[in-house]
Amino acid sequence: MSKKYLFTPGPTPVPERVSLAMAAPILHHRTKEFESIFAEVRQDLQWIFQTKSDALMFASSGTGAFEGAIASFFSPGDKVISINGGKFGERWTHIGKAYGLNVDEVKVEWGKAVDPAEIRKRLDADPAIKGVFVVASETSTGVANPVRELAELTRNRNTLILVDAITALGVWSIPCDEWGLDVVVTGSQKAFMLPPGLGMAAVSAKAWKSAETAKCPRYYFDYVREKKSQEKNTTAYTPAISLIIGLRESLRMMKEEGLENVFARHDRLARACRAGVKGLGLKLFADEAASSSALTTVVAPEGVDADKIRSHVNKKYGVNFADGQDHLKGKVFRIAHIGYYDRMDVLLALGALEMTLKDLGWNVKLGAGVTAAQAILSE
Amino acid sequence: MSKKYLFTPGPTPVPERVSLAMAAPILHHRTKEFESIFAEVRQDLQWIFQTKSDALMFASSGTGAFEGAIASFFSPGDKVISINGGKFGERWTHIGKAYGLNVDEVKVEWGKAVDPAEIRKRLDADPAIKGVFVVASETSTGVANPVRELAELTRNRNTLILVDAITALGVWSIPCDEWGLDVVVTGSQKAFMLPPGLGMAAVSAKAWKSAETAKCPRYYFDYVREKKSQEKNTTAYTPAISLIIGLRESLRMMKEEGLENVFARHDRLARACRAGVKGLGLKLFADEAASSSALTTVVAPEGVDADKIRSHVNKKYGVNFADGQDHLKGKVFRIAHIGYYDRMDVLLALGALEMTLKDLGWNVKLGAGVTAAQAILSE
Repeated sequence: MSKKYLFTPGPTPVPERVSLAMAAPILHHRTKEFESIFAEVRQDLQWIFQTKSDALMFASSGTGAFEGAIASFFSPGDKVISINGGKFGERWTHIGKAYGLNVDEVKVEWGKAVDPAEIRKRLDADPAIKGVFVVASETSTGVANPVRELAELTRNRNTLILVDAITALGVWSIPCDEWGLDVVVTGSQKAFMLPPGLGMAAVSAKAWKSAETAKCPRYYFDYVREKKSQEKNTTAYTPAISLIIGLRESLRMMKEEGLENVFARHDRLARACRAGVKGLGLKLFADEAASSSALTTVVAPEGVDADKIRSHVNKKYGVNFADGQDHLKGKVFRIAHIGYYDRMDVLLALGALEMTLKDLGWNVKLGAGVTAAQAILSE
Repeated sequence: MSKKYLFTPGPTPVPERVSLAMAAPILHHRTKEFESIFAEVRQDLQWIFQTKSDALMFASSGTGAFEGAIASFFSPGDKVISINGGKFGERWTHIGKAYGLNVDEVKVEWGKAVDPAEIRKRLDADPAIKGVFVVASETSTGVANPVRELAELTRNRNTLILVDAITALGVWSIPCDEWGLDVVVTGSQKAFMLPPGLGMAAVSAKAWKSAETAKCPRYYFDYVREKKSQEKNTTAYTPAISLIIGLRESLRMMKEEGLENVFARHDRLARACRAGVKGLGLKLFADEAASSSALTTVVAPEGVDADKIRSHVNKKYGVNFADGQDHLKGKVFRIAHIGYYDRMDVLLALGALEMTLKDLGWNVKLGAGVTAAQAILSE
């Protein structure tokens, strides 16, 4: 008998009480009962987005919600900067181009964060730049970008900042109003501890102003139409009812834990995981000063295929780590600690990793990673 | 104690075994285990779409999947006919226009089916018409349109037929290949007995050919990109994992019942419901020769507000009927029998309706509707 353990940065494990909430008999969405659930979820989303402005929900993954933001707030030909330091930054560039935007892509070496000075230079050079797209937590590399510093550049300009916070929101504090973020998109299958299929977004007044002149075609992901409906606690089209009911439950869990505690837990698990990896003598892929607390990207030891590690730890110990993407395929693997994870999960992941490395003949001292993590987890 | 009974044409009741399947621990989508589930679902979708061609899945409601079809197979300026005989026909007109298509909207009186001769005339007059959008089962009125006859007009022309089969697929036979349908879209929360959040679509070779030159902007709903991924039993973006797992279960249920039996059951429930309504002395809204077997739209008795009936039957008997939309608000109500419904459900709905009418002081003979339905249900 071998149990299964999911350590992937989306989907992440779904708590039992959330699964049970979603298994209750389905409700119709045009009822007072559902409207009251929707109202509670909207309010709790404002709490986690730290905004007094709207928080919308879409029946889609985070990608769809981000595409909707591009289509709802921009017009073909608009100049935007897209910061690409990994697979997701690359995706927002592609979507911008698909909608005919004039995208200036700022490529950043995978594993590094963007330098805000580079963005400031471009914004200074061209006041016509209407948007900056940035990934808060680049899931393909494990890097956190300096969203706050970038927002300082856009807030007093005629420029919107669109933040992919899909693996960042609910992991560390991203106070949308205080930082002056315009559109912040997230998804259900990450810190929200739900199955995929629900995108969420917070939107500033400045972004709504831009929507008035935005000309990209849109319908299903039309933010303005959804705002009008969702203000009345309904949606323009059939919502992902069961996921919204699950979201009510996971937001309740987060409220019971407390926002600061949710962030502190993710921070501690991330520090422990990184310490454990280093304790094992392995290298971290992401620049440690710019690490995302959502996941730890580990460089496979010299001469060992990362996918061989993943395959072994999965088959022998039931533990599922995520793979490296594109040129990182076979070179790194990724350990998630976003959402429904606690201290014991980090020990479990590191313990399985140690045994796997030993099984594969790599010279590892069993317990070295676990011990290094324990020092932080018992703080 | 009053139990709750859902008789709305989406969401429809979710069978217990489907809920349980979806409550199992979440799987990662980039695994052999999920790929094997995906492969089974793809194959079973081909079975129910009656096609050898692709059947795609999108993490969205049916509206999103239909929008994707418009964006993936057409270009701005393309001439299309949109048949609007209700809320959903109207929606596809709006989406076509949102993407810059040149939409010739054919308005049909609510409650009637489109006359294929009208469409033939327009197609004959203008060989440049690239598409016809039609709703197989117009949920707002309860009308079934003559999809087969319309497809006979498009199949030998350079014209695609896009079918909204959201409340038709799995209700009656819509053999996509045999009839020559190009894009047939459906959604999870109807005959598929799932919560909303999953759109499905079957696509013909002729449509794929059109995609090569289609220029509307698209990304999340790009059919071509999804085809390439889904042929390998994966998706371009994170799929609605739990709904796909639920879909495997509901498709298994439909296979156990048998396709012909699924259709025969819906047909019988619909005939019984209509007979019951007439047995009560009430009028059907939809032209009976063009009735959708998904739902029965009932005209409220003269002088009685349909919403008062709905409110009473809900509060006193726990039964949820759907309301009339737009100009039908307060004039009709809708009783669904699509998906997880059996004979007893129809009796229950009619029984509650009879008691409600009596409670409201309308002259009704208790049992008259139930008895008329029983005559058909005991066939």
